[in-house]
Amino acid sequence: MNIKQIVLASRPKGIPQITNFRSEQIELPAIKTGEVLLKPIYFSVDPYMRGRMNDSKSYVQAFKLDQPIEGSALATVVESMSDLFQPGDIVLGMLLWRESIVASDKILQKVDATQQPLSYYLSVLGMTGITAYIGLMHICKPLAGETVVISGAGGAVGIVAGQIAKIQGCRVVGITGSEEKLRLIVGKYGFDEGINYKTTSYMNKAIDTICTDGVDVYFDNVGGQISDAVISNLNVQARVAICGQISLYNSTEIPMGPRIQQTLLTNNVMMQGFIVGNYKSEFPEAIQHLTQWVKEGKLDFTETIYEGFDQLPIAFIGLFAGENIGKMIVKV
Amino acid sequence: MNIKQIVLASRPKGIPQITNFRSEQIELPAIKTGEVLLKPIYFSVDPYMRGRMNDSKSYVQAFKLDQPIEGSALATVVESMSDLFQPGDIVLGMLLWRESIVASDKILQKVDATQQPLSYYLSVLGMTGITAYIGLMHICKPLAGETVVISGAGGAVGIVAGQIAKIQGCRVVGITGSEEKLRLIVGKYGFDEGINYKTTSYMNKAIDTICTDGVDVYFDNVGGQISDAVISNLNVQARVAICGQISLYNSTEIPMGPRIQQTLLTNNVMMQGFIVGNYKSEFPEAIQHLTQWVKEGKLDFTETIYEGFDQLPIAFIGLFAGENIGKMIVKV
Repeated sequence: MNIKQIVLASRPKGIPQITNFRSEQIELPAIKTGEVLLKPIYFSVDPYMRGRMNDSKSYVQAFKLDQPIEGSALATVVESMSDLFQPGDIVLGMLLWRESIVASDKILQKVDATQQPLSYYLSVLGMTGITAYIGLMHICKPLAGETVVISGAGGAVGIVAGQIAKIQGCRVVGITGSEEKLRLIVGKYGFDEGINYKTTSYMNKAIDTICTDGVDVYFDNVGGQISDAVISNLNVQARVAICGQISLYNSTEIPMGPRIQQTLLTNNVMMQGFIVGNYKSEFPEAIQHLTQWVKEGKLDFTETIYEGFDQLPIAFIGLFAGENIGKMIVKV
Repeated sequence: MNIKQIVLASRPKGIPQITNFRSEQIELPAIKTGEVLLKPIYFSVDPYMRGRMNDSKSYVQAFKLDQPIEGSALATVVESMSDLFQPGDIVLGMLLWRESIVASDKILQKVDATQQPLSYYLSVLGMTGITAYIGLMHICKPLAGETVVISGAGGAVGIVAGQIAKIQGCRVVGITGSEEKLRLIVGKYGFDEGINYKTTSYMNKAIDTICTDGVDVYFDNVGGQISDAVISNLNVQARVAICGQISLYNSTEIPMGPRIQQTLLTNNVMMQGFIVGNYKSEFPEAIQHLTQWVKEGKLDFTETIYEGFDQLPIAFIGLFAGENIGKMIVKV
């Protein structure tokens, strides 16, 4: 079978460009015992994938040049030479960017497509939701009445983290980069306040003004100057979860900024960087709560869905321009 | 009674100068009910006191201009109008820099002067030791076999933290600023390795070379470029305790440096700033272990003792030139 795949043509310098990707035709290998043939339904594109495009040591292996990109995806089983899956099953896994995929049954997980919108397994009930849950509940441990600030608040993880903080009885302030996202987080998701950093000249002062009792918890998705402003407003005993640093992922030089350790010291602040894969033992608890909150209508979600296999690189690049509201997904 | 006191004459800009202090004669007030008259024995001078000399909000109140400096000290009770203390008792408390002191009995604590050298209550069995214990054992939680790096290793807290890490079975690397301190930590205190940052051109590479298995725990007393070098060698799941940032206390501008959050994120690192006063519930455990280790001969200590009341400002200023080995104390 002749199919299309998208490979990493060159390693991005700074912001990824469409020329860093290449679409090509390949002959799909036949499936063997223990494998299935999959037709992808949804691909997830995520900021962390930018790190894999560099040729450097990280917590996930670097993508290889001229090899297909790989990402989280949902797919339908078309043919099976595995005892674990039947044609028609819907599965979740780390899949190659191909129009059809031959995959080992070991990397796949069956999902129940009857309960929630299918794409939720890539978003609020998937890694996105789990990341928000663990960062907030296991790292930041917010108490009712505390002030929680979330950067990248209109992004996939941000909107979940903010809603969970509201469920905990916190005052939640979201920082985001457009009026549309601001309306969404405050209007739809119940954040108490929002700040559009693109139209705010003095972030430090804006946070100070809005967070009248200071900042107890900071869930950071973006880093850089936005974080500088939040950190300078932290309360004594504040907790900071570093979930992402998207504003810096495309830096071509070592990013410089004000040193933060003295602020952490003086205020007895705990800061934890976290990669959700290191918290697997907490996944069942996270999934249980997320599923329950979705069912109860306490946790809602927004997705930005691009259509067409060829849109994969465009959707990915769009993450760094903030073009997604909520989770960026490509339907193929 | 006419006595001498040392007041803050002006707020230091950058490194404290002798002109920031003033010695003056005052008439000591008579003691009242609930008070004692004290003759100080030892004054502790500590880096954190630099912060109190600035006119800014912090975890401890700023010193007032033209008022005596205050610091941790041991003293003999000379007269008592308190039921709690008798003449001859030795007490510990936050005392004014005066040759004789009238103090409320509420701020004093009696110490047993028969067991250990008296000055140990200002050092290894006092806040210094407790700080090292809590930062290492409650924040960093080192495991046997892990690599622990300590900056300011020849300073008061550093030499205790290093010995505790050795007691835990860790490989301990100390960073310090003189060959004399290097010999002390490796020769006397059993650190596995030491680095003299003043004679090392590439700290990053030096740490990489010495810490062949990376850095699992970083106990930071100094901050700045030394910390940059250690942080870039942190392992996955490393823990960093920020105990002090002495290299930055005299900064006249906001110190800038490489942003560290992405390193914390990628390596799932926990960083905790801590002020020991926020961990009072752990003090009894800390004191119990420290006392036991001292008695067993597992925990030794070095003090730099300046003699004479007038030496107080000189000893304090000396902290920022690294003139102390171990704890800086003034005997009066």
